[in-house]
Amino acid sequence: MDYNGFFRQHINSLKTEGRYRTFADLERRAGQFPTAVQHDASGERDVVVWCSNDYLGMGQHPEVLAAMHQALERCGAGAGGTRNISGTNHYHVVLEQELSSWHEKEAALLFTSGYVANWTALSTLAARLPNCIVFSDSLNHASMIEGIRHSRAEKRIFKHNDPEDLKRTLAAAPADSAKIVAFESVYSMDGDKAPIGPLCDIAHAYGALTYLDEVHAVGLYGIAGSGVAEEQGVISKVDLIQGTLGKAVGCIGGYIAGSSALVDFVRSYGSGFIFTTALPPAIAAGATASVRFLRTHPEIRARHQERAATLKTLLNDAGLPVLPSESHIVPVLVGEAKLCKALSDILLQDYRLYVQPINYPTVPRGTERLRLTPSPLHDDAAMAALVEALQESWHRVGLELVA
Amino acid sequence: MDYNGFFRQHINSLKTEGRYRTFADLERRAGQFPTAVQHDASGERDVVVWCSNDYLGMGQHPEVLAAMHQALERCGAGAGGTRNISGTNHYHVVLEQELSSWHEKEAALLFTSGYVANWTALSTLAARLPNCIVFSDSLNHASMIEGIRHSRAEKRIFKHNDPEDLKRTLAAAPADSAKIVAFESVYSMDGDKAPIGPLCDIAHAYGALTYLDEVHAVGLYGIAGSGVAEEQGVISKVDLIQGTLGKAVGCIGGYIAGSSALVDFVRSYGSGFIFTTALPPAIAAGATASVRFLRTHPEIRARHQERAATLKTLLNDAGLPVLPSESHIVPVLVGEAKLCKALSDILLQDYRLYVQPINYPTVPRGTERLRLTPSPLHDDAAMAALVEALQESWHRVGLELVA
Repeated sequence: MDYNGFFRQHINSLKTEGRYRTFADLERRAGQFPTAVQHDASGERDVVVWCSNDYLGMGQHPEVLAAMHQALERCGAGAGGTRNISGTNHYHVVLEQELSSWHEKEAALLFTSGYVANWTALSTLAARLPNCIVFSDSLNHASMIEGIRHSRAEKRIFKHNDPEDLKRTLAAAPADSAKIVAFESVYSMDGDKAPIGPLCDIAHAYGALTYLDEVHAVGLYGIAGSGVAEEQGVISKVDLIQGTLGKAVGCIGGYIAGSSALVDFVRSYGSGFIFTTALPPAIAAGATASVRFLRTHPEIRARHQERAATLKTLLNDAGLPVLPSESHIVPVLVGEAKLCKALSDILLQDYRLYVQPINYPTVPRGTERLRLTPSPLHDDAAMAALVEALQESWHRVGLELVA
Repeated sequence: MDYNGFFRQHINSLKTEGRYRTFADLERRAGQFPTAVQHDASGERDVVVWCSNDYLGMGQHPEVLAAMHQALERCGAGAGGTRNISGTNHYHVVLEQELSSWHEKEAALLFTSGYVANWTALSTLAARLPNCIVFSDSLNHASMIEGIRHSRAEKRIFKHNDPEDLKRTLAAAPADSAKIVAFESVYSMDGDKAPIGPLCDIAHAYGALTYLDEVHAVGLYGIAGSGVAEEQGVISKVDLIQGTLGKAVGCIGGYIAGSSALVDFVRSYGSGFIFTTALPPAIAAGATASVRFLRTHPEIRARHQERAATLKTLLNDAGLPVLPSESHIVPVLVGEAKLCKALSDILLQDYRLYVQPINYPTVPRGTERLRLTPSPLHDDAAMAALVEALQESWHRVGLELVA
């Protein structure tokens, strides 16, 4: 078989569809966020980043960087092993304590990424709980879908954020099966929020374990910033909270928080936890500093929400098709892959504004979009420049503004 | 269902079997490797680590740490997004170039870990190549096994490191199926090496793609240190090399290297690559500095091999049951989980020597072992102390030394 020919043919079909991904080669600059340097064949230039998941700019926070420099100097680069074989560093232990306390759970467990946290926790639980059925929100993230797939457990999809449909789906399932109800608090591509309490109440009425992905919410919602479960006052209804250190926390890594027994079970049986090198001590130190800052600084969240609300208003007033969003995520509908890519190219090349096009399979076909993530550091001038550039680009590619 | 009761019951069965994992809470100290500080309820003490996968101590190398401090100061903590959505940093681009050049391949692709690299590459290739059958060495690592499992492709196991059995297995498969032959160069628990050339020649004769995991070899074998494929002069026979930045390179992260078409295919279709936050710029910077050092310093590899050979001789002379190993990995057979744990506890508590017990499922039952990884920084005095402590511990748990 001609393997390279097969690979090239599939790459070409992505190119034909306009879905081939070209990565912007950036250099983040600590202290200058959201401005970064973009590299390409013609050289380097400053660009304003409008699509970062470093939602609060914590990736450049002086307390985070100081903690990382210190841990790097003290402990060196890598962890040197899996958590079990010489790779547990005291910084991991401290961070896990910080995370469990933040989420008001008995225990927490670190993973190398949020993806791995979801994949490992769901695949381990669903594969090992007796006759487990997973009830999965129809818009759940790839990492959850792959975890469920890997478990080979039965999966039943319920309508997105729909407690009544969850109830119907649960009622139709065998009473004696183990059950997991898995969903997210903030959906990253639409920015809508789940009705966590009602979904959990229904899940528990049918004897299911509740599994909540808060990756686009940790650091961002609630007085202490632990997420939407805190904001909605329903933390105790969630059996397992999954989060990330790679978005609002500004570092990398993922985790779960829950009862000691649940966390110890995943720790003891999860392949994606056991057989992999632990996070570097400096990453754990930086994440701990970031979480401690976020717990005690609600004002950064207030500013973040104000910035997002302001941008939505400006875009709406300018006739740009903002999708309804209850959160800090501001999606602008384009509806076609090539147009989406063309808009992004114009913004980058002619306006030095970087907004990555979001195409299938990240979002359904026909809903291709530009996804904007205003941070507390995107000021009024930056927003005015963005809105003007978007209007002009909209015209240039032949799209119409909303009346 | 009583979920916590279920979890506790499974945890208790691990405890009964002596397989429950307790993590040593360590603090690595840059500049003092292999000595680290161990924390427990009674306080802190220095221990000598004998089971790190930071095989060469590169995790504390001044050039690695300087590169990380610099990148941290320049770019901040995290990458801020997936590789596609604002997360590609120039340090990733440079590192991928360094890795492809090191492995003499057209292209390379970074992942958040070696586990994720194997899982993503194998699951993506095996799921998408037409009617793919994966031929897998019987001792392949969990990350490969899970990747193959996830693909749902058919898997056929060939006898460990046995070209003749691979040939029989391939000959029995349909000629028109896509095929992947997947194996490792150094097996981490036994320390034996694969006959890479013969396995690849047979694979290619039957039209298969060759997939080689070099995670326990990159940095350690070959003049330029890229691995056993280089040492054996057979790099060109390997279609995909998978490696890690978390062991001899001293940081964290994984990668694949291969043809441009193959790498672009995994980049474009691999869920575990696409939907996850990129490695922090400082990690990529540290790994680049480490690889550049390793490429140009074969003397660190010579010293590493000498240390491993010396330790094997000392252990054999002392009547300790060293398992045959062709590499830097020095396994000492115990053969029972509780004894293995007891030996490890004695070494840690009474001798301040840290060697994690290796039990099922990491190794087959009945082959439980202490796995020693001497580095260039374990000197003669440290080895003499270890051998004496092992002899005494052997007696204390009622095991006999070899005559």
